[in-house]
Amino acid sequence: MYTLYGRENTGSMVIEAVLEETAAPYKLIDVTRDSAGRPPEDYLRINPLGQVPALRLPDGSTMTESAAIAIYLSDKYPETQLSPPLASPLRPTFLRWMIFLAANVYTSDLRIYYPGRYTASLDAADSVKAAAVRAMAGEWEVYANALSTNTYTLGDTFTVVDIYAAMLATWNLDVPAFFIKHPNVHALYERVVARPAVARVWKRHRVQF
Amino acid sequence: MYTLYGRENTGSMVIEAVLEETAAPYKLIDVTRDSAGRPPEDYLRINPLGQVPALRLPDGSTMTESAAIAIYLSDKYPETQLSPPLASPLRPTFLRWMIFLAANVYTSDLRIYYPGRYTASLDAADSVKAAAVRAMAGEWEVYANALSTNTYTLGDTFTVVDIYAAMLATWNLDVPAFFIKHPNVHALYERVVARPAVARVWKRHRVQF
Repeated sequence: MYTLYGRENTGSMVIEAVLEETAAPYKLIDVTRDSAGRPPEDYLRINPLGQVPALRLPDGSTMTESAAIAIYLSDKYPETQLSPPLASPLRPTFLRWMIFLAANVYTSDLRIYYPGRYTASLDAADSVKAAAVRAMAGEWEVYANALSTNTYTLGDTFTVVDIYAAMLATWNLDVPAFFIKHPNVHALYERVVARPAVARVWKRHRVQF
Repeated sequence: MYTLYGRENTGSMVIEAVLEETAAPYKLIDVTRDSAGRPPEDYLRINPLGQVPALRLPDGSTMTESAAIAIYLSDKYPETQLSPPLASPLRPTFLRWMIFLAANVYTSDLRIYYPGRYTASLDAADSVKAAAVRAMAGEWEVYANALSTNTYTLGDTFTVVDIYAAMLATWNLDVPAFFIKHPNVHALYERVVARPAVARVWKRHRVQF
């Protein structure tokens, strides 16, 4: 049994979707925050950075970092075909885009939604947010150019990278405008959310797109 | 033949070290920047974000993202034992710390060294840098607590995570003070740089520690 610590509209979305795709048994624990945005003290023993998601594995150990968990589970359940095997020529592209999205787009999102964490003087928060919006636009541009007219990030092969990208797409400040700007990412998004496993998770997170 | 695009004291250090450990043939291309910090136009066709490292694989395709490349090469050359096999109980911990370091400590370093990229008004750069220094201190604390009295990040098993952590350690603003604060990370560092493959790369990058 897996235990997934998450919260609505956070990185736990992609992990829930992977778990739904694998049909592995799991339970969800909602990590609520206090009015200052802090998670409960006992959650800091699970993830000292306080971030969600975290995943408790059947052996009792804990993983953090959404991209790490997504790669791990996808590799662990090869029958889902959510990741290319180690020897596949698609493996470099798979790892590249998973970590590109995690280390660039995801971190830009954090600066957009929590700009006050990224400056020592709070009056600079708007400047941090503005720079992050601009940076993220460039990062999506790189991703959309690479996606090009492909059906999925890796070409014809659906993988967890596509779910990860779809999750990040929903976090754009203006999702309809984003989809107009990047129709190929929009088309990818529609393919991803048409999957029953993903649709169940999106509904639970009350995603409207 | 691999072609590694890098620059002194950047994320290409860990990739060079992995290539030295594998003994795979590779050539290095130094990506210089102009006075405004921009890489050459033709490099943007290799990595549109302009960042190093990028790795051209023998099949002509290109990878970016240091953690992705490090994981890929380590898995590709299992005889180096730089990554635990997929079925190893150490695999979750391996992926967790690789991506923790890439998405947290590495991105904090970018904010420390290039704070102007993270704010729309340049007079807030000092505030961005100060917040990044504080954030990175917390991230190293989490890593050092997890390392505890272990020989390596994964316990007794040396992996590329240790090289990645050692590279990031050299980027602290005050490395001697950092090593005094985290003697266990210092001890890990000494073990990593005692490896001949790593020592060759550190010398080439003129690392002093």
